[in-house]
Amino acid sequence: MAMDYDKVFNDAIKALQDEGRYRQFADIKRRRGNFPMATHYDGRTAGGERAADNRTVAVWCSNDYLGMGEHSKVLAAMHEALDECGAGAGGTRNIAGTNHYHVLLERELADLHGKEAALIFTSGYISNEATLSTLASVMPGCIVFSDELNHASMIQGIRHSRAEKRIFRHNDTAHLEALLADAPADAPKIIAFESVYSMDGDIAPIAEICDLADAYGAITYLDEVHAVGLYGPRGGGIADRDGLMHRLDVIEGTLGKAFGIMGGYITASTNLVDVIRSYASSFIFTTALAPALAAGALASIRHLKESGVERDQHQERAATLKQRLRDEGFPVMDSESHIVPLLVGDPVKCKRLTDLLLHEHRIYVQPINYPTVPKGTERLRLTPGPCHSDAMIDHLIGALKQAWHELGLQRRAA
Amino acid sequence: MAMDYDKVFNDAIKALQDEGRYRQFADIKRRRGNFPMATHYDGRTAGGERAADNRTVAVWCSNDYLGMGEHSKVLAAMHEALDECGAGAGGTRNIAGTNHYHVLLERELADLHGKEAALIFTSGYISNEATLSTLASVMPGCIVFSDELNHASMIQGIRHSRAEKRIFRHNDTAHLEALLADAPADAPKIIAFESVYSMDGDIAPIAEICDLADAYGAITYLDEVHAVGLYGPRGGGIADRDGLMHRLDVIEGTLGKAFGIMGGYITASTNLVDVIRSYASSFIFTTALAPALAAGALASIRHLKESGVERDQHQERAATLKQRLRDEGFPVMDSESHIVPLLVGDPVKCKRLTDLLLHEHRIYVQPINYPTVPKGTERLRLTPGPCHSDAMIDHLIGALKQAWHELGLQRRAA
Ligand SMILES: Cc1ncc(COP(=O)(O)O)c(C=O)c1O
Ligand SMILES: Cc1ncc(COP(=O)(O)O)c(C=O)c1O
Repeated sequence: MAMDYDKVFNDAIKALQDEGRYRQFADIKRRRGNFPMATHYDGRTAGGERAADNRTVAVWCSNDYLGMGEHSKVLAAMHEALDECGAGAGGTRNIAGTNHYHVLLERELADLHGKEAALIFTSGYISNEATLSTLASVMPGCIVFSDELNHASMIQGIRHSRAEKRIFRHNDTAHLEALLADAPADAPKIIAFESVYSMDGDIAPIAEICDLADAYGAITYLDEVHAVGLYGPRGGGIADRDGLMHRLDVIEGTLGKAFGIMGGYITASTNLVDVIRSYASSFIFTTALAPALAAGALASIRHLKESGVERDQHQERAATLKQRLRDEGFPVMDSESHIVPLLVGDPVKCKRLTDLLLHEHRIYVQPINYPTVPKGTERLRLTPGPCHSDAMIDHLIGALKQAWHELGLQRRAA
Repeated sequence: MAMDYDKVFNDAIKALQDEGRYRQFADIKRRRGNFPMATHYDGRTAGGERAADNRTVAVWCSNDYLGMGEHSKVLAAMHEALDECGAGAGGTRNIAGTNHYHVLLERELADLHGKEAALIFTSGYISNEATLSTLASVMPGCIVFSDELNHASMIQGIRHSRAEKRIFRHNDTAHLEALLADAPADAPKIIAFESVYSMDGDIAPIAEICDLADAYGAITYLDEVHAVGLYGPRGGGIADRDGLMHRLDVIEGTLGKAFGIMGGYITASTNLVDVIRSYASSFIFTTALAPALAAGALASIRHLKESGVERDQHQERAATLKQRLRDEGFPVMDSESHIVPLLVGDPVKCKRLTDLLLHEHRIYVQPINYPTVPKGTERLRLTPGPCHSDAMIDHLIGALKQAWHELGLQRRAA
C-alpha cells in the first residue's frame, strides 16, 4: 500500500536524463597562486582516488572574474580574521552572530554604492529572495514588474511575496511602459531588473528604466551581481559607470563573483534596509556569514575601490578573446560586456564539445543548455580574466578549432 | 501622486518598536583562543570607534556550542584550504564551483548519518527550504505534516512547495496519528520535525513518529540542527544516540552550530539527494560554499566523530548550570537537552535584564521575546559549553541575582 517514493525520485531524475538536462558536476580544486589552473578529480575513474587520475586543467568558466579569490590582500585578511575571531560567526545576526567585520562590511558597501545603509546575506541568491519577497509583501497591493530574463533568485523572491507580477520583454522599455500605464496609478510598484545579464552579456537601459520609475512612481530594484567590482570608477557596477547609482532605490550585489568570496548584499535607504533586516525570514533565522568571509570581502572591495588595473585587464582580455574568436570565424554572440558567449546551437554537441575540451585539451568549460538558455541557443560561456595569458588564449583557440572540426560545427570563412 | 514609500517603511518599523519587538544587534568580535570572551563594540557611543568604548564581555548565548570555531584542527584546515585553493569557490556547483572539499565533505556527512548520499547548502536554512519545497512539489498531491514549533526555514520550505500542510501539536503523536489517519491513504506524505527544539530544549519522540510513518507510508524528515555534533557516539545527533538514523528518510543538519563553521546539509538516499541536487532552485543558482568553510567543517566533523570529550563536557556544563540556577531558586524551564532556558515572563523586563547584564556585568545574553517564543514566556536562553569555566558560572549567577533583584523578579526560596 505504501507509496513507492524511490520510484517517484527515480522517474524525476530519468526525465532530466531523457531531456539531456541532467547535470554532472566537475570535481575540481582551484590552485591558489596559479589561477586559472585547477586540479580535476576525474569522475570517469569511479571509486578510489588515485593521484594519477587527477589532471591539471585550465578553468574558462569561473565567475571569480578578476581572480580576487587568490589576491594576497584578500587571503591575508581572511587568515587574520580566522586567527582573530575563529571560524564561524557562532549565531544568527540577532543572537550572538553579529561580528564587527559585518558592521564594517555593511558600511563599506553602503559607501560603495552611495547609499545610506547596506545589509549582508549568506548569498546573492538570498539577498534577492529575502528583499523582493519582503518588500513586495509589506506593501499591500504591490505589483512587481520583472524583466523576463531575471535570475531565478529574483523570480523566487517575487513568487514568495505572493504579490502580483507583470513580466516585461527583456530590456524592452516600451513594453515596460505599457505595463506600468496599465496598472492602477495608486498601487505600490517595484521594477526589478539586472544590469549585466550573465548568459548573453547584454546590459539593461538603466536610465530609461529609472525615467519610467519616476514617471509612474515605482521603486527601482537593480541586481548588479555580474557587474560589481567590474565596472565604474570604484567598481560599483554599471550604475556606477553611468553615474546612475542615486537613481536606484535598491542595488543588490554578490560577494561571490568579482569580489571572489561568498555572500550577498543590498544597499538602499536606512528605512528600507531596516525593513528587510527586521522582517525577512531568510535573513533573520540563519547563522551569520563567517567573519573571515566578511573580512575577505572587505579587503577585496577596498582594493577594487582604489585599483582599476584589474578592471582594465579584464576588459582587455574579454575584448581580445572576442576578437581572436571572430578572426577565426567562430560564432561569438553579441555581448556588450565581459561575457563571451560562443554559440553551439545543439545540446548534445554542446556537451560533447566540453567533454572533448576537458579530456583532450585539459580545458574546463561547462556547457550551457536549456533551461538556462533557450533551446537552439546552447552555448559555451567563456569568462576570460586577468589570469588568462596570451598563451592560454592560443591554447583555447587551437583546442576549439580542433573540437569544432571533430563535431562538424561550422565556422565562417575567415 | 507618487506613493510615499519611505512612510510605508517607517510605519513598518514603528509597528515593531511599539510592540517592543524591534531588534538591535550587539556588535561583537569573538576572541579566538579565548572563547567565550568577545570584544563588544558598544553601540551607545554612536559614531566614532574609540577603543575605550570597546569592552570585553562573556558570551552566554552562542550556538557554537562546543567552541569548535576556535579548535586548532579546524583553523589549521581552513588556513590550509585558503592557501591551497583560494577564498571562494568561484562559481555555482554546476559551473566551476564544485571544489574537491565539497565532495569529501558530502561523503563524510553521508557516513556520519549512515546514508547513501549527502548534499551541502550555503546554510541550514537553505537546506530546509530547498529540500522541503522541492520534495513536496515533485510529488503531486503531497501532504506535509509539520510540528507546530518547526523552525522558520522548514515553514518557508513547505510554504514554497505550495503543497497542503497539516500542523500537529508540538511533539503530540496522538494528534499526528489523527491527522495521518484523516488523510487519503494514497497521498504522498512527509512528516517534518526537529530533534532538539532550540528554545525549550525538549526532544521529539523520534521512534514513535517513525512508527507512525511506517504505518501510514510517510517520508520522515528530521532537522537535527541543534543536535549534530552534540549527541550520539559519533555526533550524528539524537537519532544517532538512540540508534534510529536508519529509520529516517532525510536527516538535515547545519555546519554552523556545534560544528562551528557555516553551511547546511541533508543526508538521504542517492535518488532523493539527486532530486534535490537537480531541481532545487536555491541549491542550483548560487555560488557554492567557500572551500575553506567545507575544509573546516570536514575537520570539525572528523574530530567529533572520534572524540566524545567535548560532548561530555558540554553535557556536564549544562547540567551544572541548571543545578546551580535551581539551587538559587531561579525559574529554570524544563529542558531535556543542553539548552538552559530561564523564564522571565515579561518582554520589557527581559530586555532590561539583558541590558543590565551587558552594561553592569559584561555578560552578553540576547533576550528572547515574542514572536520567537509565546507571549508570557519571555526568557533568557543560556548555552553553556566547554569554554565556560566554573568561575564564569559563579560570575553569571552573581550577576543574575543582582539584576533579578533590581528588576523585582521572584526567586523561589532556596
Ligand atoms: C543575476 C544573478 N543574481 C544573483 C545570483 C546569486 O548570487 P550568489 O551566487 O551570490 O548567490 C546570480 C548567480 O549566482 C546571478 O547570476
Ligand atoms: C531548528 C533550526 N533549523 C535550521 C536552522 C538554520 O540553520 P543555519 O543557521 O545553518 O541556517 C536553525 C537556526 O539557525 C534552527 O534553529
